[in-house]
Amino acid sequence: MISIPGFQLSSVSSGVKKSGKKDLALIFSDVPAKAAAVFTTNIVKAAPVILGQERIKQGLCQAIVVNSGIANAFTGTSGYQNAVQTTKNISASLGIEESLVIPSSTGLIGGPLPVAKIKKAIPNLISKLGPGGVEEAAKAIMTTDKFPKFAVRKLKIGKKEGTIAAIGKGAGMICPNMATMLCFIITDININKTTLKKALVNSVDNSFNKIIVDGDTSTNDSVIMLSNGVLDNNEITLKSSHYSKFENVLTDLNTEIAEMIVKDGEGATKVVKIDVQGARTVKEAEKIARTVGNSLLVKTAFFGEDPNWGRILAAAGRAGVMFNPDKVEMFFDDKRVIKNGAQFQAESKFAPVFKKPKFTVTIKLKEGNAESYVITSDLSHEYVSINSEYRT
Amino acid sequence: MISIPGFQLSSVSSGVKKSGKKDLALIFSDVPAKAAAVFTTNIVKAAPVILGQERIKQGLCQAIVVNSGIANAFTGTSGYQNAVQTTKNISASLGIEESLVIPSSTGLIGGPLPVAKIKKAIPNLISKLGPGGVEEAAKAIMTTDKFPKFAVRKLKIGKKEGTIAAIGKGAGMICPNMATMLCFIITDININKTTLKKALVNSVDNSFNKIIVDGDTSTNDSVIMLSNGVLDNNEITLKSSHYSKFENVLTDLNTEIAEMIVKDGEGATKVVKIDVQGARTVKEAEKIARTVGNSLLVKTAFFGEDPNWGRILAAAGRAGVMFNPDKVEMFFDDKRVIKNGAQFQAESKFAPVFKKPKFTVTIKLKEGNAESYVITSDLSHEYVSINSEYRT
Repeated sequence: MISIPGFQLSSVSSGVKKSGKKDLALIFSDVPAKAAAVFTTNIVKAAPVILGQERIKQGLCQAIVVNSGIANAFTGTSGYQNAVQTTKNISASLGIEESLVIPSSTGLIGGPLPVAKIKKAIPNLISKLGPGGVEEAAKAIMTTDKFPKFAVRKLKIGKKEGTIAAIGKGAGMICPNMATMLCFIITDININKTTLKKALVNSVDNSFNKIIVDGDTSTNDSVIMLSNGVLDNNEITLKSSHYSKFENVLTDLNTEIAEMIVKDGEGATKVVKIDVQGARTVKEAEKIARTVGNSLLVKTAFFGEDPNWGRILAAAGRAGVMFNPDKVEMFFDDKRVIKNGAQFQAESKFAPVFKKPKFTVTIKLKEGNAESYVITSDLSHEYVSINSEYRT
Repeated sequence: MISIPGFQLSSVSSGVKKSGKKDLALIFSDVPAKAAAVFTTNIVKAAPVILGQERIKQGLCQAIVVNSGIANAFTGTSGYQNAVQTTKNISASLGIEESLVIPSSTGLIGGPLPVAKIKKAIPNLISKLGPGGVEEAAKAIMTTDKFPKFAVRKLKIGKKEGTIAAIGKGAGMICPNMATMLCFIITDININKTTLKKALVNSVDNSFNKIIVDGDTSTNDSVIMLSNGVLDNNEITLKSSHYSKFENVLTDLNTEIAEMIVKDGEGATKVVKIDVQGARTVKEAEKIARTVGNSLLVKTAFFGEDPNWGRILAAAGRAGVMFNPDKVEMFFDDKRVIKNGAQFQAESKFAPVFKKPKFTVTIKLKEGNAESYVITSDLSHEYVSINSEYRT
């Protein structure tokens, strides 16, 4: 059983999901925890995101209440009030400050949050609180996800051993109406507020922000992290010798969740890393990686297992970055595909790589020393089916 | 029969297309014509584009030779030499300057241009030159196109009447390996070189650059325009009273071809205009229109006839443009969908619009007075099939 000292979790069915499956989860810290969050960059934000952004400012949080089934997005003023009311109900039952509760929602957009149903389920939700419950909570926040997503890491801080656990959801960067990628990270390791924020932002940049399924950004995307300090280690600061280890472990943990999301991507049959090397700047490398990773022609070629390097190079060429196509080299895993802008060897030598469920396309520009990458999926018939037929 | 004074066209089968269908077209002006062109912005350019860019610099051209079946892209130095050789063969047979011939290619990428086959077909190609032949030339440059694309306009210049004709190809902004959107425009109207260039660039911005099928930009995209002045009107300059009429007619002509390309888009079942109004700047309006028009979630919703305004607003929200979502209004054709950021009326009132093969989504931001639009298509199963199965 995964347990994180000082944290209790629970999950129940409140009836918001018509299937009767679990749809409400609570993450509770025995003491107010230091908190940081990264929310969607979409300027159209769901009500719980707007409220969460306000409350995270104080850098403290003691409970996160997450419902699935209804996203509480595009719901106007009443949607915001519903989010507030839900946190009021939770805080009253837990006997904690209302401002220490952050709400999170995922599911159908446009519909009103069933506040009454959730309220009715709260006593049961709270009575079930206890250590463990990570996997069940992960199940309770699923929407179109095919499997629950959670992961855990142990980290030595001097003689003590801390725990960091993550509970995520998402299939595709965004599901059709079932918006959202969510991740909740909890740790007993004591870390300074500003340092926690920095570690979270950096780790999100190098994990969740590297994945592409369909290029759309949800109105509900949220990553929220709590550190309750129960491990009682010396507070980690930016200057601590432990800091870089902490950030690395956190990035590694988030990358595991991020790769689960790509793997669970809508209709995805392939997970492909687009690795751009030899760019003049990291920004330019990333621009190319993103353009290739978002190209429909490239993604359909992955689905068709067609080792079509021309589409990849053409996508790189329209990224808005200057490079000399005649110097470019490309590899599929370790197989050389092009050299000096032309095909290097017979297609039969590198075509088998595209049969694999997971592989890397490396593009070497030879313009400089910067590099970046993204992780993308293919574009399948099932993607079109899921997203065109969802509401019918 | 469409005929443009002073121009002769012809088309034959050279055997480059294995089907035996026509695959070689020649556009010939009796006298050297003033010429302007707009080529792909992709920095990976096909050999004929590189050669065309060099030759268009003199602002004169007398013959355009277009082959379909092989794109002569990603073919390195030998590809360039093949393009040069083809224009040498054409110019020798026509008895004109080699530099007055511009080549153009569309078809499979990566393979070598069959220069010998083309050379063998040239005597026949030239012997068939004559007025008319527009429709046959349009057929000869087709690849995955389902129908030939050409259009014509008449334009009064004082007491004289000039003709502008366009021959296009393209299905999707780019076809899988069959790269390319091409358009050749010919007119007998006398117009100043610089003015011709300006009219062409403006009209392309407001026609071809407004269409989105899959957001990819081909290595071969080219629009080339010739004006041979045979009408013998007073040369049109930027200061002429006729200039704006000329540009408008040209834009109208190119829009007709552009809409044919969207309609012929790979697997497209819908043609949708995304019209963004009330933006602070045209650039911001265009950014939003493009982000919405490129969104896979929006395009699959069009295919599924799902009037999912939430996906549209969410796509607008990630365009990188600040606006207040609570002020936004949206219309599907003339049906109001959202007002003040929330649904305005029952879905049954606006849902029928999505059943139409052609409709407009209007987004009113109320931030300023600038507007822009794009024309996009839906994303269908057939798109995935065409692009994933093309080489199998």
